[in-house]
Amino acid sequence: MSLKKYIIEFIGTFFLVLTYCMGIFGKVSTDLHPLAMGVMLMALTYSMGYISGGQFNPAISLAVFLRGKIHLKEMGFYIVAQCLGAVAAAFAVALLISAKPPVQPIITPIYFSMVPALMAELLGIFGFTWIVLNVATSKSLEGNSFYGMTIGFALAGLMYSLGSVSGSAFNPAIMIAACVAKLSLWNNLWIYLVGGFGGAALATLAYKYVLNDE
Amino acid sequence: MSLKKYIIEFIGTFFLVLTYCMGIFGKVSTDLHPLAMGVMLMALTYSMGYISGGQFNPAISLAVFLRGKIHLKEMGFYIVAQCLGAVAAAFAVALLISAKPPVQPIITPIYFSMVPALMAELLGIFGFTWIVLNVATSKSLEGNSFYGMTIGFALAGLMYSLGSVSGSAFNPAIMIAACVAKLSLWNNLWIYLVGGFGGAALATLAYKYVLNDE
Amino acid sequence: MSLKKYIIEFIGTFFLVLTYCMGIFGKVSTDLHPLAMGVMLMALTYSMGYISGGQFNPAISLAVFLRGKIHLKEMGFYIVAQCLGAVAAAFAVALLISAKPPVQPIITPIYFSMVPALMAELLGIFGFTWIVLNVATSKSLEGNSFYGMTIGFALAGLMYSLGSVSGSAFNPAIMIAACVAKLSLWNNLWIYLVGGFGGAALATLAYKYVLNDE
Amino acid sequence: MSLKKYIIEFIGTFFLVLTYCMGIFGKVSTDLHPLAMGVMLMALTYSMGYISGGQFNPAISLAVFLRGKIHLKEMGFYIVAQCLGAVAAAFAVALLISAKPPVQPIITPIYFSMVPALMAELLGIFGFTWIVLNVATSKSLEGNSFYGMTIGFALAGLMYSLGSVSGSAFNPAIMIAACVAKLSLWNNLWIYLVGGFGGAALATLAYKYVLNDE
Repeated sequence: MSLKKYIIEFIGTFFLVLTYCMGIFGKVSTDLHPLAMGVMLMALTYSMGYISGGQFNPAISLAVFLRGKIHLKEMGFYIVAQCLGAVAAAFAVALLISAKPPVQPIITPIYFSMVPALMAELLGIFGFTWIVLNVATSKSLEGNSFYGMTIGFALAGLMYSLGSVSGSAFNPAIMIAACVAKLSLWNNLWIYLVGGFGGAALATLAYKYVLNDE
Repeated sequence: MSLKKYIIEFIGTFFLVLTYCMGIFGKVSTDLHPLAMGVMLMALTYSMGYISGGQFNPAISLAVFLRGKIHLKEMGFYIVAQCLGAVAAAFAVALLISAKPPVQPIITPIYFSMVPALMAELLGIFGFTWIVLNVATSKSLEGNSFYGMTIGFALAGLMYSLGSVSGSAFNPAIMIAACVAKLSLWNNLWIYLVGGFGGAALATLAYKYVLNDE
Repeated sequence: MSLKKYIIEFIGTFFLVLTYCMGIFGKVSTDLHPLAMGVMLMALTYSMGYISGGQFNPAISLAVFLRGKIHLKEMGFYIVAQCLGAVAAAFAVALLISAKPPVQPIITPIYFSMVPALMAELLGIFGFTWIVLNVATSKSLEGNSFYGMTIGFALAGLMYSLGSVSGSAFNPAIMIAACVAKLSLWNNLWIYLVGGFGGAALATLAYKYVLNDE
Repeated sequence: MSLKKYIIEFIGTFFLVLTYCMGIFGKVSTDLHPLAMGVMLMALTYSMGYISGGQFNPAISLAVFLRGKIHLKEMGFYIVAQCLGAVAAAFAVALLISAKPPVQPIITPIYFSMVPALMAELLGIFGFTWIVLNVATSKSLEGNSFYGMTIGFALAGLMYSLGSVSGSAFNPAIMIAACVAKLSLWNNLWIYLVGGFGGAALATLAYKYVLNDE
């Protein structure tokens, strides 16, 4: 078994989570957080996607598995590598901000409410997965050079659209790291897991059903 | 009749309208609203344009019809699918923001005035349609890989330029959804319809006349 | 003589100037002005460059002439078309903002000083022309698909870098329009003309001398 | 010995440093500084990379040397050219801002602390070098058209992520210029040198070890 692609997933998810968490403490205002995440994901996808597929997201790994592009066992290793990268980033964040004055940032929005948050997660990850499946796995778009741009800017657009409701980056690994870094509450994690994996599964089913001859 | 492309237009317009409306309640300041719309449209165009043409805009459907690329009946179905997607998004917005404190956002700018607004709509949609027709239907640019970037960033640029006058995203379907979501007034809708379809028709005529041998 | 490319230069410069001037009245904060200009120029270059070369800037027309790609007479017509488009945009701006409360915007920065402003113009247009000549006229990069992105983002980067000193968009036609629209002073126009044409000429000489075997 | 590529490195680093330093005085709020740097680096990479490789960064030159793509002597000339360009830009900045009121900008963040800053430098330049090596030197991605976008947006993403800790642009030449321009302290320079060259060397080793059959 080649470890290479799992190392790549570890590194990619590490930098994605670092950008997500540091943006909350750092000089990125909330307004630019989605853009920072989008350009980072774009750079990671373009530079490492050729090795591992550039998923960096357990929900996308589930979608790629349901689409029949990776095996169940492979999916498991992908998700483990992503979660390890995410948790490693959460610890790096703790070290990086140690010299800062104490703040109380919290991703979960102020008017957080379960139903809208779950709906935002489902919609957001449905849209993200749908876009990823089309641009990265459709026969008609094979060999295109804009997949990284599309995936990165789709994340930015969806975060601008739904980010204020759920506070999310539509990626369960990121939300686990956010709990470790005390930026979100463990009690709310199920929303991001149900919304994340549920939205990805729905998008894959819709993709298969609507575009069956693709 | 294949439903596929109409489903695609429904989904694409849904997410475009979601980004437009949520941006007004959400954490996108007005300054980044055009950029959020631009990157979203880019991602939607690149990921779904290969199926339906990626119009997501009744005015563009009119232009594509006048350019002779789709039939009248097809245009009708496109516009119906887009409007259904837009209205569905307006209802999703109502659910998503239900947990928020009451606010009174309004797209129509404060110093709204009929003549400048109509002029801004006409100019904006003229420019947008002109750019779309060139980058997506000109023989000389056939097979280019930058059509999504061009279309998305054209929308962003034009919203930065004219958005403060008419409050628009140069898309009649979006403005219908904005009225449903109580972000704009039904009384003003005619400005966006006349400006939208008029500007698109003028751009198509200009395109045919100026670039007739294309 | 085919009028087509001059009409294209008129339209392109019109929308570029519209974005420049409206950004000062509109909802683009000064922080996003360079980005709005960059994405607009990118969209205009990608969608219309195949017809006219997509110059939209008298200084670039001078550089393209000195590079030997167009004749003197052609350059003259290009510059006339650009200036007409720019002035038309200045009048459109006056109509578009007529419903707004009176404001006193002024492009010329507060601590405007002749020597730094002239230096900023020379440096900015040198860099812009240098980048344009390389990406659009070098044999080694012939047929590349990133010329529009490079040119648009070069403008954004240079405006972020030097815009606070001279207030400029490194384009003499834009500054003429800014004077017409009363956003800049006629007395200072010579700085933008000398800096603009001088910087473009220097960049073309440097390009020819340094990269002579290109 | 052809001077051409060293002149290119001089020019490129000059404009990169200009964007970095002017952004601190100019109208770029700290929020948009990373984006301004990213789009500038993208434009410089796309327009000049075909001549010199478009490194504009001593740490990247070290990585390219360790990767076996340039000789030791070549690396030396690259670094000298980059540092000369950087220092020239620092002097240009002094002239450009001479007309401004005295300010006390300082890149070094307020809660600057040695360990987090060094860690941020190491992480940031590790990620940047890793992305550059993959997108620009991997066989599988040879001839891709997205290298400039990837490199520019990687810088923006990493600056959004780690910029608030070390204040850096992950480029030793820029930090030397920042000291010359009195935007940073000479006493702290070693952090950026150790972090910069150390991170780049580690990334090259990791690249060779992990992706050895590439």
